[in-house]
This record gives sequence, structure tokens and C-alpha cells, in this order.
Amino acid sequence: MTISKVRKEEQLNLESLTWGDLTWVNIEGPTERETEYLAQNYPFHPLDLDDCLSRIQRPKIDEYKDYLFLVFHFPVFNKEARVTAPSQLSVFIGEKYLITLHKGELKPLVKLFRECQIDEESRQENFSQGSGYLLYRIIDRLVDYCLPILNKIGDNIEAVEDNIFSDRRRGTVKGISILRRDVISFRRIIWPMRAVIGSLEPKIRHFTKMDMAVYFGDMVDHVDKIWDGLDEYKEVIEGLNDTYDSLATNRTNEVMRLLTVIATILLPITVVASIYGMNITTLPFLHSDYSLLFVLLIMLVIIGGMLYFFRRQHLI
Amino acid sequence: MTISKVRKEEQLNLESLTWGDLTWVNIEGPTERETEYLAQNYPFHPLDLDDCLSRIQRPKIDEYKDYLFLVFHFPVFNKEARVTAPSQLSVFIGEKYLITLHKGELKPLVKLFRECQIDEESRQENFSQGSGYLLYRIIDRLVDYCLPILNKIGDNIEAVEDNIFSDRRRGTVKGISILRRDVISFRRIIWPMRAVIGSLEPKIRHFTKMDMAVYFGDMVDHVDKIWDGLDEYKEVIEGLNDTYDSLATNRTNEVMRLLTVIATILLPITVVASIYGMNITTLPFLHSDYSLLFVLLIMLVIIGGMLYFFRRQHLI
Amino acid sequence: MTISKVRKEEQLNLESLTWGDLTWVNIEGPTERETEYLAQNYPFHPLDLDDCLSRIQRPKIDEYKDYLFLVFHFPVFNKEARVTAPSQLSVFIGEKYLITLHKGELKPLVKLFRECQIDEESRQENFSQGSGYLLYRIIDRLVDYCLPILNKIGDNIEAVEDNIFSDRRRGTVKGISILRRDVISFRRIIWPMRAVIGSLEPKIRHFTKMDMAVYFGDMVDHVDKIWDGLDEYKEVIEGLNDTYDSLATNRTNEVMRLLTVIATILLPITVVASIYGMNITTLPFLHSDYSLLFVLLIMLVIIGGMLYFFRRQHLI
Amino acid sequence: MTISKVRKEEQLNLESLTWGDLTWVNIEGPTERETEYLAQNYPFHPLDLDDCLSRIQRPKIDEYKDYLFLVFHFPVFNKEARVTAPSQLSVFIGEKYLITLHKGELKPLVKLFRECQIDEESRQENFSQGSGYLLYRIIDRLVDYCLPILNKIGDNIEAVEDNIFSDRRRGTVKGISILRRDVISFRRIIWPMRAVIGSLEPKIRHFTKMDMAVYFGDMVDHVDKIWDGLDEYKEVIEGLNDTYDSLATNRTNEVMRLLTVIATILLPITVVASIYGMNITTLPFLHSDYSLLFVLLIMLVIIGGMLYFFRRQHLI
Amino acid sequence: MTISKVRKEEQLNLESLTWGDLTWVNIEGPTERETEYLAQNYPFHPLDLDDCLSRIQRPKIDEYKDYLFLVFHFPVFNKEARVTAPSQLSVFIGEKYLITLHKGELKPLVKLFRECQIDEESRQENFSQGSGYLLYRIIDRLVDYCLPILNKIGDNIEAVEDNIFSDRRRGTVKGISILRRDVISFRRIIWPMRAVIGSLEPKIRHFTKMDMAVYFGDMVDHVDKIWDGLDEYKEVIEGLNDTYDSLATNRTNEVMRLLTVIATILLPITVVASIYGMNITTLPFLHSDYSLLFVLLIMLVIIGGMLYFFRRQHLI
Repeated sequence: MTISKVRKEEQLNLESLTWGDLTWVNIEGPTERETEYLAQNYPFHPLDLDDCLSRIQRPKIDEYKDYLFLVFHFPVFNKEARVTAPSQLSVFIGEKYLITLHKGELKPLVKLFRECQIDEESRQENFSQGSGYLLYRIIDRLVDYCLPILNKIGDNIEAVEDNIFSDRRRGTVKGISILRRDVISFRRIIWPMRAVIGSLEPKIRHFTKMDMAVYFGDMVDHVDKIWDGLDEYKEVIEGLNDTYDSLATNRTNEVMRLLTVIATILLPITVVASIYGMNITTLPFLHSDYSLLFVLLIMLVIIGGMLYFFRRQHLI
Repeated sequence: MTISKVRKEEQLNLESLTWGDLTWVNIEGPTERETEYLAQNYPFHPLDLDDCLSRIQRPKIDEYKDYLFLVFHFPVFNKEARVTAPSQLSVFIGEKYLITLHKGELKPLVKLFRECQIDEESRQENFSQGSGYLLYRIIDRLVDYCLPILNKIGDNIEAVEDNIFSDRRRGTVKGISILRRDVISFRRIIWPMRAVIGSLEPKIRHFTKMDMAVYFGDMVDHVDKIWDGLDEYKEVIEGLNDTYDSLATNRTNEVMRLLTVIATILLPITVVASIYGMNITTLPFLHSDYSLLFVLLIMLVIIGGMLYFFRRQHLI
Repeated sequence: MTISKVRKEEQLNLESLTWGDLTWVNIEGPTERETEYLAQNYPFHPLDLDDCLSRIQRPKIDEYKDYLFLVFHFPVFNKEARVTAPSQLSVFIGEKYLITLHKGELKPLVKLFRECQIDEESRQENFSQGSGYLLYRIIDRLVDYCLPILNKIGDNIEAVEDNIFSDRRRGTVKGISILRRDVISFRRIIWPMRAVIGSLEPKIRHFTKMDMAVYFGDMVDHVDKIWDGLDEYKEVIEGLNDTYDSLATNRTNEVMRLLTVIATILLPITVVASIYGMNITTLPFLHSDYSLLFVLLIMLVIIGGMLYFFRRQHLI
Repeated sequence: MTISKVRKEEQLNLESLTWGDLTWVNIEGPTERETEYLAQNYPFHPLDLDDCLSRIQRPKIDEYKDYLFLVFHFPVFNKEARVTAPSQLSVFIGEKYLITLHKGELKPLVKLFRECQIDEESRQENFSQGSGYLLYRIIDRLVDYCLPILNKIGDNIEAVEDNIFSDRRRGTVKGISILRRDVISFRRIIWPMRAVIGSLEPKIRHFTKMDMAVYFGDMVDHVDKIWDGLDEYKEVIEGLNDTYDSLATNRTNEVMRLLTVIATILLPITVVASIYGMNITTLPFLHSDYSLLFVLLIMLVIIGGMLYFFRRQHLI
Repeated sequence: MTISKVRKEEQLNLESLTWGDLTWVNIEGPTERETEYLAQNYPFHPLDLDDCLSRIQRPKIDEYKDYLFLVFHFPVFNKEARVTAPSQLSVFIGEKYLITLHKGELKPLVKLFRECQIDEESRQENFSQGSGYLLYRIIDRLVDYCLPILNKIGDNIEAVEDNIFSDRRRGTVKGISILRRDVISFRRIIWPMRAVIGSLEPKIRHFTKMDMAVYFGDMVDHVDKIWDGLDEYKEVIEGLNDTYDSLATNRTNEVMRLLTVIATILLPITVVASIYGMNITTLPFLHSDYSLLFVLLIMLVIIGGMLYFFRRQHLI
């Protein structure tokens, strides 16, 4: 009695899967052609269809009598720009359909669709509890996918931290700056997502056949955990920046001190030598046999006196 | 049956457009003459008319029995001062009229008025759903107009960021300072606007013929998106400032280190040479054939010893 | 039928004005004698009379059955200390009287009292709508009086900003510090005032003959506008401080670099010259006719080599 | 009919005062012996008695059917450690008794108890309105006692501020650091106290014979005033720190500049003199009568050229 | 009639204790085998059993009809990594059982279990009031265990503070950085715990035989006290960082000043000596008997003049 269909509209970037009376339509890289197709086949509000294509959306839930329109932003790490950027997922959910529109960057979503295409069993598992449960399965996978990105940042922070206290300092400032930027972007993605996922469960209730409060509660916990992690990372990075600056000031100090010591030791020698290099014949001891010893003694006395004085003043 | 009139009061900075029973009165650069005209023809509160001329208003909604008085501030980029400044739009909205007062800096508003003047079709599109819908059309355009200004700031931030990590550093501090100031001004404009636009829909409900909750919800999303962007930019700019300072401290360090290396290498040579320049005849090896070699050897030993010592202390 | 009296109690710092059945008692520089007088003639709570003299009050509204006791703090710019300080205004308001106690620093209040003393018409305008309206007139003037003080700060900020990017840097740090302190004080004055003025209207309702919601709403807007301005100034000043520090670090850098270049050019010459100044006769080319050229060549080669090396390392 | 007793339990750190049917038991330096005595004579919860001795309490109000248990922390300036530390006051208040437990550091409380011991009149004044009023008298005195501590901090801030802009800079950093720490501690004491004192009045209502809303309102105002002052001091101190750092950077700049000027003037002279000190006989003008003038001219030209160049580059 | 059993399932990391009708099952280091055992014997939700093993949980309370599932995170100081890390405690509480799952790092919990195993009396004390009371006893001990960790941080802060103002500065930056990191982690552990413990009492009410409001109120106070302490430490550490930086800048200043003084004194001597070292015979006083005195006089005059000038300019 379970009817299962895999259909692909060749002319549109659109694939659909049906099990029982529930159809999942997956649109990768939606264009105006796809939204027109949806406008003709579903009772969707034109503003929502515009939102699927627009780049300036925020995560949100729009409720209508027969369906919900949801916009999510999930973090995707862009390897080239080395930055975490938001990738939009637009969802229309009705009693008998679930339509997902995205750019194909969300790996876990694409993989889940493939699994359901290939594997009858997994199709049954995901589709049998109604469209709300299927949505939960998708969002849950995408939320879990944030964790490795978060851990990556954590690893990078530790690497930078090690660098700071070691002698490998080249590139540390850039490293901190990139990390900071990354955490800022990531936080901007998660922040509005928390509100949307937190208020999802009651709105999705009549699209599912079982009580999903526990499941959604668990998902909210995961999002909050990610948020907490990002908050901690933000503070840690600010701390690292301060630490780096303190260490740099310290090093300037050390080098200054070194320069001063060199000057304190070498300049007096030069001075005395210069004086004895003058073409003046009345310099004391100039023609004595011990003139060299005498000169060296003067030098040592001056250097010793200066070093003693500066040490006492805690200047060196 | 649709009566459409375009009227221009020659003696006043006032143009009006009528379609059906709805009139849009647009006043560019209002003066006391225009507010007196309004006072005579409409039942407006004197305080509100004062507010249209005063420069110290905040965005707000004042409700009266027959009409609403609204004050909006939209960002306008002042090219000469290179800063984003607020431009005030005052609106009176009643069942059969919409009166807009502004300084003519709000391009999208001026353009929309022109369109409706020239084009019958666009007049019908904007006027047919009541004064509330017309207001929505105006505000929506003005909100969307904020996005290119925001993106401009984003581009400037990226330019400054590139400068920081390249060698083109001249002017970077000034660039960061101007960006920071710009974002502060922009935020001050958007912040009170959010509250006004967020509470607009229920108050405007009886001036429109259709349910506009979705439309206003969409507009609120756009304003929130702008706010989010500004918030992110604020954090990014603060981060850039820190990064710049860290890099500057770094460079000071490098230069200090270089100076110290130069001093470490050259001063000992000078010292030894000065000593052998003294008019003292008892210097060792002075008259030997290998005196030069001997002196050079002393120099090399001293320099080598110092470099080795400082390297071991991680000072250079 | 309108009875108007101007009375001055010679022995007390107390003047009173009556129009119709409303009396405004103005006490400049209240002492215990004045509060005793009030205690004898009015049903005021002893704590409130103490508060009129005490220096440690906060803005507040105390409600009693027959009267309200209000404490306001308004900013007054102290020219000698060059700082904005709070000046207290205590108000007792009953149905037929309004009593103001202050130190005489609040110019707009003093001026309004004088106007009402001299001018029958202005007395009628201010007194005819009940004690609540008279209070509104006073507070409104005092709130508006904050704006020039705020603008003064804005002008000072711009002056400091110009200084920072020009070469006139002497005194800039002190200027920023004074501005910062001024904005902090100003904010501390406005912050509690917002709450008091925001909740004033409903409490004052039965002391006035007309609906004053719009008037008080307008006044609240002005206070909020002042607050917004101070908030913006606070952020701008913090930004200026950061900018100043970055520029100072930059200048240190430039000077360091200059010193390094000088050292790089002059020290090698000295070194070579010192070597050829040694009393050693085996130096190469010492007795040649081209010895000078040879020595200059060595100097140029060393300087050129060092400059080339440092330039390649982006150190200079 | 007013019965007044002064009793002191010799074996316990416990003194009690009775007037009418109200007894004030004052315990200085409570130990387990005192809490056992209370456990035997009063219906107190064991946890509360533990809390009187424990060091890790927070200000709080615990309500029971017959009594309230209150914990307050008041700031006490520790002269030795030069820091403001919290001193705990535990209070049990019932209809006919008020029990205060503290370490004897709270001067105003100790003094009030002494006054009531000695002076019949002051006993009547404090005891006649019930235990709630007596508590109000105690807390009010303790709150007022915070003001001189606050003013002390204000004076210290001004002293540090004067130091910063004068030449007396030794110890300024330590001064700022101690002030900052002091304000942090003070804020930590006042913060939870605000909540407790703010919610005290309704809970204490049935222990007093008169309406005390005005009195408690006044006390809350005082606590808020203290909090406002601390908030302002916190911001001022942070500003002072920034100002100090800017000035220090400035001074480094000035010194660097001086060093560069010295180097620019003196090094060229040395260079030229070194060259003419070489044992090379082909130097120009060496044997001329005007050789000295010629050499001095070269020196002046080099110095002048360098100064002119650096001045034009705004480097000096 | 009290039946008490101590049972240990050899094949599972599971120990259980029974007194009366209440059983405490303690699982150290839970694996899938233990959760399978629980799934077979108790009506627990599969998601909860997963959460016991997962590492990415947040503290939370999940309510079910027959039981509560609680997740707590307590701070454990990891001596090797020198950092405070969260250790998870999962609890299932039903009317007749309390199941605790943890990694064995929570000393006070392990100790309490041992005590109850060994000592009949302590078993009675902890078990006789129902599972809710037993849970309270466990959590209370774990909360109290946070205090020594907090005090440890306080001691470390004081040690770092002493270092800053003494001359022992090596390692201070690292010390501040580690402290900051530690406080950040600790705060991240306590923050969500506050919410969970604050809402625990009403939910646990039907698992206990006595009114526990006072007990839980006391525990919440302790958690809040810890939070306050961490907040204060956070501010203190930030202050220490600023102080350290100011002192470092100060020291750079002092060293710079010293270098300048050395240069000011020694360079003029060198210059004059170099001039008199030139092979020019027309130098004044060169062949006089007082030539040396003359030269020394010139040197002293130049040095004195420079020192006087710089002192007047407040540069040295």
C-alpha cells in the first residue's frame, strides 16, 4: 500500500520524492523558473516566493492558513575566502508536502535526499511521521553539522594560543583577526536561528503524527550549546588579542632594554677612546707605558658606575 | 469612474495627486507657509505641524481619532561631508489623504511621486488599496534604499581590511575612524526606526483595504536585516582597529629589533677602531704586520659573541 | 474676575504669583527657614521638605493624596570647572498651587517667572489651564534648554576630531578626557530624568484642565532625542580615543623608522672612517692616491647593501 | 507603663534592650554558642542560623510565617588592606523582637544601640513604632554611612586625575588600579543590596504600626543614588586609564623625537669629523688654512639639509 | 522494616544502593552497555539515554510523566591542562529511584555514595526523605565543591596582582591570560547551571516528603554567590590587564628616557673629541698647554646646555 515515487523534472532544477501521501520537493539553485512553477502548483504568497530568490532575508517563520514558510540560514565554511558564510534554506511545509529551496551547499541536506532516493527503508523512516517530522530530520542534521565547524574554530584558537606563547609569531595577528571575523559571522548566523528554531515546535504541530516536543527541545539545546560555544570563543579571542598586545609591548621593552645596555657599555668606551684619539698632547698618561691600562681602567670605571646606577634605579 | 488629478499649488512647495478618493500631497522643503496651509485645510494638532519643521525630532507615531502623524528618519549619504546623516520624513495619513513632508533628499520617494504623476498605471497600482497601502509602498522603497548604503560600508570595510594587511598603510587610521563614525550614525538612524516600523501595521489597519500583515512583516525583516548588518559591521570595525594596533606594535618591534642589530654589529667595530685610533703607542700588535687582521679578528669575535648571546636570550 | 497678585515675602527667599485661583511660589536658594514656612502653610511630608535641602537626591515622583512632590535634575554648564553638573529643582504641585525650589541656576525657569511677573498676558497663557499645565511649561523650557548644551558638546567633539587629524596635537588628550567626563556627567543627569518625565503625565492629569498626553509625549521625545545624542557622543568619543592612540602609535613608528634610517646611513660611514683613523699602517690603499675614493666607495657599498636588504624585508 | 530593660548576658556576646513589648537583641561576633541560644529561644530555621555564621552568604530575604530572616552586606573600608570589603548583618525580625548579628564593624549600628542603651528618649523614638520601624532606623543609618565612603572614592579619583595631567606621575598607575578595584568591590556589595532593600517594605508591613512606604521609598532612592555614583565612577576610572595610556604614548613619542633630533644633529658632525680623522692625506682642503671652516660648513649643510627634509615630512 | 541492599552488577559499571523503597543507582563512566541496561529496566526516552553519552549537552531539565531527566555540568579543575573544565552529571529521578551517570571526576558525589555504602546512619539520613531530598543532598555538595575552586582563582589573582607591582614580571602576561581563560570557562559552566538549579525546586516537589523550598533557596543563593564572585573576578582580571599594559608602557618610557640621557651626555663628548681628532692643524687652542681644559670645557657647556633645555621642555 505504500506508494513511493522518484521523479525528476528535467527542465527544472527540481527533484521530488513521494512516500505514502507525503512529497518532498527539493530545489537546488532556485531561479525564477522554479518559483513560477511553485506559484502555479501551490497556493504560496508571492512575497514568499520572492524571498526564496532574494539574498537579503533573515531567518523567519511566516504562518499561513494551509502552510508555513520558513527561512533558515546555516553556516557554511567557504574554503577559498577562509570565512564562515550563511547559506539560505527556504522551506514550504504543508500537510502533504515539504519543499526545500537552497543552493546545494548544505551537504547534510543533499545527502539525506540522496539517501531517501536510494534507500526505501530510510525513506520510510523519514517520511512516515508526516511532513513535520521530515522537517525535524533535515533541520536536526543541519544543526549537528554546525558542530564540526565550531570545533574547527576551537582548534584554530588553540593553535593561535600556542603560537602566541611560543616564538612563532609571524602571522599571529592575521590569525587572530581572521578568527575574530569568523566568530562574528558565525554568531550573526546563529543568533536569529535560535529564535526561529525555538519557536518552531508549536507551529509545526499539526504537520506531524507524533508529539515532537522532546525532539525539538533537544534540537534547541544543541543550538544553544553552539551559541554558548561561540560566546566563549568571542571572549577567548578578545583575551588573546589583549595577551598578544601585552606580550608585544613586553618584547619592545626587552629590546629597548638591550639597546640601552649596549649603549651603556659601548658608548663610554668610544668616548674615552675618542678623547685619547684627539691630537692634543697634554692628555694625562698619554706617553706613559701604562697608558693603555690607565685608559682601560677609566672605561671600566665609567661603565661599572653607569650599570650600577641604572640597576639601582631598576631601569635596566 | 476613476478620477485622477495632478495639481500643483504654484505659490507653495506643494504638489498633490488624486486617484479615486485618495489624495497624496507631497511637500518638498516645508516652511511655515506650507504648515499654515495644512493647518487651515486639515484637523492637525499644532504640535505636529511644529514637529514637521523642527530639526530635533525622533521617529514616532502619534495617534489621533481621524489621522496618524508619523515621523521617520532615513539615512542619506552626504557626499561632501562623507558621512551618513538622517533625513526626516513627516507623514500625515487619513482615510482619504496622505501628506508627506521632507527636504527632497529622499530619492526613492521623489521618484515614486514622479512615476505616479506621469504614469496612470502606476498611480492605480499604488493608490487603489487605500492610503495605508500607499504609505507601505513609500516606506518599503525607502527601506530598500538603505541596502546599497549598507553595502557601500561593507565594501569600504573590505578595502580597509585589505589595506591593513598590505603595505599601503597611509590613511588607514583615518579610514577606520570615518567608517566607525559612519556606522555609529547609521545605527542611530536605524535604531528608533525599528520600533516605529515594527508597530506600524496594527495602527494603519483601518486606512487600507487589504490585510497587510505579511507585507509589513516582510518590511520589518528588511529593517532587522539592516540592523544585523550594522551590528556586525560595528564589531568588525572594532576588530580591525585592534588588529591595526597590534600590527603597528609589531612593526615598531621589528624596527626596534633592526636598530638593535645594527647597533650590535656596528658599534663594536667603532669601539675597537676608536681604541686603535688612540694616540697611545702601547697598544698590542699595533706595529705588527698582521695588526689589521688582529683588529678585524677582535671585532668579529665581539660581534659574534654579542649576536650569539642575544639570540640565545631570544632578544633578537 | 481674574485676580492677579505679585507678592514677595521680604524676609524669605520666596516670591509668589497668583492668577485666578492658582499660585506659583518660587523659592530661590531654599534654606531651613523657607522649608519651615512651607511646613506651616502646606500639608507636606517632613521627608520631602528635607529632600529639598539635601544634596543627595535622585529625580523622583512621590505621590500623596493632595499633592505630588517631584525632584528633577537639569544639567547646568559650570564655566569655571568646565563641566556639566546637575542642578536640582524640587516641585510641590497641588490643585491650586505650584511651588518650585531651586538654586537660581536654572535660567529658563527664572526667566519664565520674570515674564509672568511683568506680563499679564503671559501669566494668563501659563496659568489658565491649571497647575499641571504650568508645570509642563516650566519643564518643557528646561528640557529645551538642554539642547544648546548638547550641541556645544557636539561642536567640541568636532573641534577635537579636526585636531586629531591635523598637526595641532598639543592638548588633544586632555580635550578628549574632558569631553568624555562631560558626556558621562550629562548622561548621569538625563538617565533618571527620562524615567521621571516618562511617567509624569498620568500622575499630573487631575491638576490640569485639558488633555496633555500629546504635549507630554512630545516632551518625552525631546528627552529621548537628547539621550540618543549623548549615546552617540559617548561612542564617538571612545572611537576618537582609539583613533588618537592608533595615530600616536603610527607616529612613534615613523620616528623609529627615521632614526633607523639615520643610523643605517651614518653609522657605516663612521665605522669605515674610524677604521681608517686607526694608527695602523697596513690598511689597504692607505697610501694610494685614490685612498679617499676607495674609502668612499666602501662606505657607499655598505650603506647601499643595508638599505637594499632592509627595504626587501619591508623593515624600512 | 513603658517598661525598659537593658540586659546583658555575660556568658554570651549578646546584649538586649527592651522598651514596651519590643526587644532588640544585638549580637556582636556571633559564634555557635549564640546561635544555639537563639535556636533554643526562638522558632528559627536551622539553615538561617547556619547562614549567620557562614561567610558565603548573599543579601536576601527569607520569609517565614512568624518572622523574617534578612541578610545584608554593607561596605566597610578596611584601612590596612586599603580596600572596601563587605560586612554582613543578619537580622531576625518578629512582631516583638529584632535580633541583629554582625561582627561589630558596622559603626552606625553599634552607635545606635549605645544611644538607645543610654538615652531613654532615643529608645522611645526608635522602639515606639514597632520592630519594622526600628529596622528601618538601623538600615537607614547604615545606608547613609555608605555616602562618605563613596565621597572618599570621588576625592581619590579627583586626586588621581590631577596627577595625570600634572608632572607627578609616579604611582598613578597603582592609584588607578586600586581605585578600580575598590569601585568593583563596592559595586558588588551594593548591587544585591538594591534588590533586597527595594523589596523590603511590603514584607515588613505587618511589623510596624505606621505606613512606611514613603520612608522606604526614600531609602531606596539613596541606595540608587549610591549605585548611580558608583556607575559613574566606574566609567570615569576607565576613562582615566585610557587617558593615562594616551599621555604615556605621547610622552614616548616626544622622547623618541628628541632622541632623533639629537641623533640628526650630532651624528653628521661625528661622521664628518671621523672622515677628517682618517689617516688619509688626500682629503680635500686638508692642508688649507680654511680647512676648519670648510669642515664646519660641510657639517652645517648636512645637518641643515636633514632637519629641513624631516621637518617637511612632518617626521620631527 | 528498613531493607538496605548494596548490590554491584559485576559486568556493568553500575552500583546500586537501596534503603526503604528508594534505590540510588550510580554509574561511573557510562557506555552503551549501561544505557541499554537502563532502557530495558526503566521507561526512559531514547533521546535522554543518548544525551547521557553525548559530549555536547547543556544543563537542562526534561520533564516526563513519571520521571525527570536532568543534566548538570560541574566545574572540575584539570591539573594537567591547568584549566577548569565542565564534567557532566546526568540524573534520572523517579519516585523510587535516583540514577546518576558521570565520569567519576566529581569527588563529592563519589564520596557521598561511598559514605552511604559504608555507613547505615548516613544512608538513613540521605534516603529517608525521598528521592528529591537525596538529589538535593548530592547537588548541594557539588555546588559547595565549587567554592574552593573559586577561592583558588581568587588566590591566583592576588598572586598575579602582587607580581605586577613588584619586579617579578616574567610570566605575568601568561598568568593573566590563563586566569582570564579559566574564569571564562568557569562562567560558561555556572551560567546555564543557575537557570537549571533555580527552576529545580517546583519540579522536584512530588519526589520528596518534606517542603524543600528553603533548602533549594539556600542552594540558589550559593550558586548566585559563585556567579557574583566570577563576575567580580572577570572585571578584576580585565583591570589587571590594563594595569599591566600601563606599567609596561611606563617602563618603556623610563628606558627611552634613560637612553636619551645617555645619548645627550655621551654623544657631545664624542663629537667634540672627534673634531679634535681630525688631522686639521688649524683647530683653536690645539697646541696650547690648556687645550685639554679648553676641550673639556666645551664638552661640559654643550652637555649642560642640552640638559637644561630638555629639562625645561619637560622632555627628560
